[in-house]
Parts: sequence; structure tokens; C-alpha cells
Amino acid sequence: MPQLLSRALASQESVFARMSRLAAQYGAVNLGQGFPADAPPDFLLDAARRAVGTVDQYSAPAGLPALRDAVGADLGVDGADVVITCGATEALNVLALSLYGPGDEVLMLEPVFDVYLPQARLAGADAVTVPMTLDPVGGWSLDLAALRAAVTPRTRALLLNSPFNPTGTVFSAAELGEVVALARAHDLWIVSDEVYDELYFGERPVSLRSLAPERTFTVGSAGKRLEATGWRVGWIACPPGLSGMVAGIRQQGSFCSPAPLQAAVALSLPVARDSGFYAGLREEYAGRMALLAGGLRDLGATVYEPRGTYFLTALRPGWSAESLVERAGVAVIPGEAFYAQHAAPPGLLRVAFCKSRDDIGRALERLTAVPT
Amino acid sequence: MPQLLSRALASQESVFARMSRLAAQYGAVNLGQGFPADAPPDFLLDAARRAVGTVDQYSAPAGLPALRDAVGADLGVDGADVVITCGATEALNVLALSLYGPGDEVLMLEPVFDVYLPQARLAGADAVTVPMTLDPVGGWSLDLAALRAAVTPRTRALLLNSPFNPTGTVFSAAELGEVVALARAHDLWIVSDEVYDELYFGERPVSLRSLAPERTFTVGSAGKRLEATGWRVGWIACPPGLSGMVAGIRQQGSFCSPAPLQAAVALSLPVARDSGFYAGLREEYAGRMALLAGGLRDLGATVYEPRGTYFLTALRPGWSAESLVERAGVAVIPGEAFYAQHAAPPGLLRVAFCKSRDDIGRALERLTAVPT
Repeated sequence: MPQLLSRALASQESVFARMSRLAAQYGAVNLGQGFPADAPPDFLLDAARRAVGTVDQYSAPAGLPALRDAVGADLGVDGADVVITCGATEALNVLALSLYGPGDEVLMLEPVFDVYLPQARLAGADAVTVPMTLDPVGGWSLDLAALRAAVTPRTRALLLNSPFNPTGTVFSAAELGEVVALARAHDLWIVSDEVYDELYFGERPVSLRSLAPERTFTVGSAGKRLEATGWRVGWIACPPGLSGMVAGIRQQGSFCSPAPLQAAVALSLPVARDSGFYAGLREEYAGRMALLAGGLRDLGATVYEPRGTYFLTALRPGWSAESLVERAGVAVIPGEAFYAQHAAPPGLLRVAFCKSRDDIGRALERLTAVPT
Repeated sequence: MPQLLSRALASQESVFARMSRLAAQYGAVNLGQGFPADAPPDFLLDAARRAVGTVDQYSAPAGLPALRDAVGADLGVDGADVVITCGATEALNVLALSLYGPGDEVLMLEPVFDVYLPQARLAGADAVTVPMTLDPVGGWSLDLAALRAAVTPRTRALLLNSPFNPTGTVFSAAELGEVVALARAHDLWIVSDEVYDELYFGERPVSLRSLAPERTFTVGSAGKRLEATGWRVGWIACPPGLSGMVAGIRQQGSFCSPAPLQAAVALSLPVARDSGFYAGLREEYAGRMALLAGGLRDLGATVYEPRGTYFLTALRPGWSAESLVERAGVAVIPGEAFYAQHAAPPGLLRVAFCKSRDDIGRALERLTAVPT
């Protein structure tokens, strides 16, 4: 047989897919992969059932005009600057291919969401990660000095995630202002992964785009916003004038996004915004987060409550994700899965609370019985 | 602003997207882009309406097990060797990234389907095209000697399309046997784009996989088979043992395919096969092809009737696709769009007959009035 490429041989099952597979194998409660237990809202489902049979052929690669406009209206940008993608994963991949290549470096923070590193590698660029600081008492914080020190003449882009999966950090306007100053000083692109933009606990997150519209690409996700992670409708809000280039790269990846689901999301984004759907989701998830955080603390874990996302991080030396799924029947994501260039804090786990209260309660019961 | 990458600057709107845009702009009958005028079959639509609300979260990157098994049953392979993708475009892109990279050459035929070249470029490889022979009377044929002569020590893969868009060629078992012998002699991968596998006029096409299962990746498309090009459900049937590597690359592109639409296709593939749906489609399209071919001949065109796909090619010196859309209100695809390394036959056009009989008739009327 012909040889396989090193980049193909290096590809492996994502930790999320693997833990979901192990969860099914061991009959575990799955607090690992970030997909919600609840069904998407009826207004979205009804819109999809109507779109099927009427919007079934290719859209333009940039997306259905109605959806580009709906996203633009939500984000305060022109619909012409929006490119629709097959989920935020594709959005991030398209931006990697568009913005950095061989000889370039892209700066990102660690813990790092798992697709960022292989996508940089497939684009031919080198990922350079800067570790977040984890203070055992105070929790996660951004090390701006370390970020500044990591910039080299080869740095082409900064890739940030706020609200931040897995730490739950929401960067302050002051921190983002420093990031923007750094990007301007070194003429860097900014890729801002904001898929949890509507899922925050406290003040509304500041979008990097509002601070640096000329260089920021904002990534968003209907799947995360509308509880339909399997629908594969995401987007990129581009700096003015760059959507044509981005759509040109995007059309080589999957040509266009699922057309009937695009149509359904286009109708649903204004409904979600105007009906209080997101506020209801935040309230519900805040309750589940408190339930999970309290239970884990009772079990001796140090819990870092998130300011956004539907994950919390916890330190519990002695627990390993591998043994939890097998011996306790609870799937979580091991902290090491988010570290590639620095050491993970020992005992770090990411635990999802986008699951049912019943499942969270059952998981806590099972963890009570874990031999330590 | 930071510089843009040359590969990003090189990206441009596809000719299909452009001609559809021009068709809308000029109110033209669109015989350009290959999407059908008819709605998808009710069994598919009903299945999708039921799946929405029940299968809404991520599938595994390789796809829903039920769909992998349904595709496997249709193709005669194990479902474990099938990877589901966001349409055949993504399937082809995943294979480009998996099989060839910097320093490698991939051989393909010209006229060439438009994504093959930019996908090879994004993968870092060099595309080398071998022209098909167009005999004015006898039509299109494969130049096996030229194909053999184009192999170099850098050649890593052969990329073929049968039934062949745009020529409509269906390669014979003898021709494919020679292709396989060449691939074996030089240890090449074979990527076989068979998205029109159920759309043929005459004998059923031979699949390359049946001749070289150890090295052939077969690409297929639910959108082409089931008249739902906007659904983004395609697949790759891999040589045994390689689906894990392919799924690993695939998950970086869009993580997974639209889950409710995957579920609907899984239920529909056996229905389509067992109900005679494909045979009905072939019969219907054969009639539309005859209508279009006869009308074009009456207008002085030389028509090459396809053995498969829903396109025909025609030579009509004096007609240009650009002026037809603007002055006659008929959108077709110019032959030059399929040529990058060799000269296109003058006056070559690709014309789609997956459109309504009314539209085909109206297009022929408008073409009658074209000033030549």
C-alpha cells in the first residue's frame, strides 16, 4: 500500500468522541462531551420541519442571505460580512486555512480547545500556547505578560475563546483591550471563538469585535445557542471586505451548510433573542451549575465556577477520568486533554452541566461511591 | 492590516456559484449549477421531519452508525469502513488532506470538476491533469497512454470521476482495469468520485472499488442520489482499516454531518434502493436529456450525450456562457471553467438537464433568439 501522510497518521479520535464512546460502552452518565440533554426549542424544530421540502438544494457557499442577515442583526454587523459554516468547527478550520500557513505562528491559550492544535497543523502553521494561571484559591486568570512575551516575528494571529471552554473564564474589557493593543502593535489577526456568547453568568461578555472590528473574525454557533449541536450551522463575522475571501476557502471544505437547517436558524435567531430564550437558558444552567458545583465540593473537589459556557473545572487529585468512566460510571473530560505544550494541573477535570438534573444527581451519587 | 495568505487571495467564487448568482441577476433559466428542480422524495422528507427533534446533537465524527451501515449495505462494504461527511465536497477535501501533501502529485483528468484543483492546493500538493480526448464525432474518451505517461516518482494518487462530470463518460471495466494496473504498478491511492453512481443511461457503472478494494476510496452523495443537494450528507467508503484515520482528519473540518439529516438518509437509502426510486429517476432524466439534446442540435450545436450524470456537453462555436446568461437569459457553465492546465475545446458548454421540462423548453426557446 502507498504510505500514509504523517498528518494523517497523527490524526486521532477526539477526546470528546472517545469519552462519549466509553460512556456508552460502560453505561456511564455522560458529563463529558458538551451537548445538551434538553431538546432544541419548539420554534426551531417547527421551522426546520417547514423548511424540509422547501429549502433542499445548495445555498451559496457564504450561506442563505436570510441567515447571513439574521446573524448580522444579532451581532451588529452587515450580513454581507457574515459567512455561514458547517458548525463552529468548520468556521475555525476555514480561518486557520485563511489566515496562517507554513512559517507562521498562531498564539492561543492553554488549556486549549482540542481542535485548535490539529487545525493549525493542517494549515501548516505552528501553534504556540500560553498557559492560563490557575491559582488554587482564586481560579483561572490570563497572564498578559506571558502572552506579550510569546509574540515573535512569525506570529500571525491570536486565537481566543471567551467565554472560555474549558475554564469558564469571561475576559474583562480591560483584558481584551490589552489583547487588542498587542494585536495592533504586532499587526496580528484576531480569531475570537464566541460560541458561548449567550451562555454567561453575570455581565454580558464583551466581544473582541467591538474593540477591533478591523482585524477580528468572530466565530459563533447556532448549535450552542439553540441546543442543537448536531445541526452544523455556525458562522464567521468577518472584518469588512473579507467575507468573499473567507467564503472562497469555505466552499472547498463542504461547499455550503445544510440548507433547510440554515433556513430554520434564520427564522429562529430573532425569536430566540426577542422571546427571552437565552435568558431562560442562562437561569436554568445557573441552577444546574450550582447543583453540580455543590455536589462536587461535598466530595472534596475544588470547584472553579465558570462565568460562562456550560462546563466547570474542578481539581480532585486521586480521580482520573479514565477510571471514573470505568469504575464509577461517570464520564468527564480529563484536564490533560486540554494541554499539549505545558503540564496540566494534577487532578484537573472538565465537567459538563448541560445535562439533566437527574443525570447530574445520579453522577454525584455514583461519585460518592468511588474508591479513592 | 496583516497580510493575507496567497492561498486565501487565490480563492474565488466557484463558477457554479457565480453562474447561479448571474442567473438570478438576469432572471435567467438556470441550466448551470447541478441541483435538481424537483423536490426530494416524500419518504426522505417525512423521515427528516421525524428526525428533527429526536436526533439533534453531535454524532460521532464518522457518522451515525445506522447511516454508516446503510451506506455499507448499498455499496457492499462493512459499515465500519464508511465515514460520513458534509457532502461529497467535504469527502474529497478530507481525502486530499489524508492522502497527499507537499511534494506530492495527484493525477486527475481534464475537464476537471472545479473543487479538485483548489483542494489539492490547500492540501499542499500539485495537481497534474491529463486531458480527455474529444473527437468531434465520436465524443469523449480516456487517453490511457497519456495517463501512464503523466505518472512520476512524486505521484501519490489518481482522482477519477465516473460517471464523469462534465463529460458524462462512464468508464468501461476494461479502462478501469488499466487504471488499477497503473495504480498497482506505481503504488498509488485511488480516489473514485462516484456521486452519480445511480444516475446512468445504459449499463450500471463499474465501481473502481470492486477492482481494487485495497487502495480505493469511494466518494458518494445522498444529495445527488436523493435530489437534496443542500442537505450535506456524503460519504467515503475506505479500504479496510483506514476509516479511523480518515475520520480523524474529517473531525477537524466540521466535526460531524447534520445529525437529523443523517438519520433521515439512513432510513431512506434502503427505501430508495428497494422501491425503484433510482430507476424512475434515470427514466425521467433520460427523457429530459433527449429533449435538451434534440433542441440543442436543432440550434446547430454538436451534442455529446452522457452515459451518466445529469449534464450534457455541447460544442457551439459562437456562443459564450457569459453572453448567453446576459443576452439570452439562459445560464450554462462555460467549458473553460473545467480547464486549468490545457486549452478547452472552443465553444464547449456544460448544460444541466436536472431542471424541469418547462425550464428546458423555455431555455431552448430563448436560445433560438440568440444573435450569433
